[in-house]
Amino acid sequence: MIAVDWGTSSLRAYRLAANGKVAEQRRADLGILACGGNFAAALAAQIEGWNDSDIVLSGMIGSRNGWVEMPYLDCPAGIPELAAGMKRIDTPEFAGRALWFVPGLANGSDTETPDVMRGEETQLCGLLDTMSQGTHMICLPGTHSKWVTVRDGRVASFTTAMTGEVYAVLRQHSILGKLMNGDASRFDAYAFDAGLRRSAQSGGLLHHLFGVRTAGLFQRFTESALPSYLSGLLIGHEVHASELLTRAPRPAQVHLIGSDRLLSAYAHALLALGIGVQRHSEQLAALGMYRVARARGLTG
Amino acid sequence: MIAVDWGTSSLRAYRLAANGKVAEQRRADLGILACGGNFAAALAAQIEGWNDSDIVLSGMIGSRNGWVEMPYLDCPAGIPELAAGMKRIDTPEFAGRALWFVPGLANGSDTETPDVMRGEETQLCGLLDTMSQGTHMICLPGTHSKWVTVRDGRVASFTTAMTGEVYAVLRQHSILGKLMNGDASRFDAYAFDAGLRRSAQSGGLLHHLFGVRTAGLFQRFTESALPSYLSGLLIGHEVHASELLTRAPRPAQVHLIGSDRLLSAYAHALLALGIGVQRHSEQLAALGMYRVARARGLTG
Repeated sequence: MIAVDWGTSSLRAYRLAANGKVAEQRRADLGILACGGNFAAALAAQIEGWNDSDIVLSGMIGSRNGWVEMPYLDCPAGIPELAAGMKRIDTPEFAGRALWFVPGLANGSDTETPDVMRGEETQLCGLLDTMSQGTHMICLPGTHSKWVTVRDGRVASFTTAMTGEVYAVLRQHSILGKLMNGDASRFDAYAFDAGLRRSAQSGGLLHHLFGVRTAGLFQRFTESALPSYLSGLLIGHEVHASELLTRAPRPAQVHLIGSDRLLSAYAHALLALGIGVQRHSEQLAALGMYRVARARGLTG
Repeated sequence: MIAVDWGTSSLRAYRLAANGKVAEQRRADLGILACGGNFAAALAAQIEGWNDSDIVLSGMIGSRNGWVEMPYLDCPAGIPELAAGMKRIDTPEFAGRALWFVPGLANGSDTETPDVMRGEETQLCGLLDTMSQGTHMICLPGTHSKWVTVRDGRVASFTTAMTGEVYAVLRQHSILGKLMNGDASRFDAYAFDAGLRRSAQSGGLLHHLFGVRTAGLFQRFTESALPSYLSGLLIGHEVHASELLTRAPRPAQVHLIGSDRLLSAYAHALLALGIGVQRHSEQLAALGMYRVARARGLTG
């Protein structure tokens, strides 16, 4: 089968062997808004030469701005619910083959401000059935970070923090960015830790953000270290607000799923706060789609 | 004398009578970065026809990117300290006249993240000597809101919250703005109050911000009401973090200084939280500069 993780900024396609292992993979900077609505042609180009008959798709491709708008399933939900919620689409461009869209997940959909995810649920499915019974914490850092509580093999609840996007817009469009230099990839542990410590103090995030400006203005940090101070401050606020540190019993570890660079920053923050971490790659999405497909009876 | 409040986005010039009353005033969208460094010519054009010999200037014009970089005076500080800290500049473009630059104020300048203000201090001086002995709270909402504690006629301390700028960058550059329509001036009290209530709940600002997206996505608020929800959320976080509500004794009222539209939103928030307000116009800056000048012996 073919598994496609298709989000706002990229498309990742995996060709899976019968045992679920990734045999081949391709990646393109081809977010759902970059195809001009011609999703079938874009997908056909990306998986050219792969002739498997089942194609499973997850991520923002199943959103209102995507190919097919899929519903959000309410938590608690796990592999069986996602498998049952998949929708088969037949389209002339893929004659004789089936496209399977995975639904998203929602938390608190009856509240004023529900939480939602699309794409992360298949990454989670790559982990769910390897976890023991009981409660586990998973964090998927990113533009919109997810903090997920897994209980007995299902996603029990989750919350989203806009950390990555707030970092990006402040860096690119606010007065804070003017005091920083261009190299976004450099990690300065001293400045990051200072931001992290600041996040534990009173005054609130909106006040602490102004402190990023004065820390630059008064040359407490260099132009190249200041981005790490801002990052530590925001990630610190995110971790403190997640209530991870005040939960009883306090979790011994958090599973982190994501790209290497982001995971390093979050692992650094969590370890500094006395929480262990276990890292997993984003490629878990392929395994997760395989497991959902198998639960639906598509493979193996 | 002439009083000039010259900031990042505008220049306000006041011609004052001998008793300190504003006789004439002019305003231009001529921020300090918009004059290409030719401050003398820009000022001469703005005050053309006004021949008073003393010209007092305050605001970002006294910053590193302004005309003359003025120091920050440490708190506590009041009218006498600001008067003593003024600096006289003589320049050929204003031969026979004196330009007087007012210093800024700093709070916690020995800490990692000091707080600073430029311009707001002259607005405060317009109020200081009308206030009784004891403690008073003043809020100056804006791009960078100031929360000021006045004690016995002096600025005892203050903190800054980046509320206005965070609102603007999120609205213009983040995914949240895509769910809002163009009319920034409409105030929707129902949505504002909902945001205000949300700010009092757990989860943290970064999580609450994602809720603005889902509140829009799930059509809890219309495109035109959603900006007010975001505004209520941010102002609520600012007020809660100011510790105004947890102070003992809790202040019965807050003095608000600023433009009508901003003041209405802050007054609405404070009244909803059980705090009285007293409003003052930004024009207080003219009176404040008059009082500082008089303390220096320039007038009256």
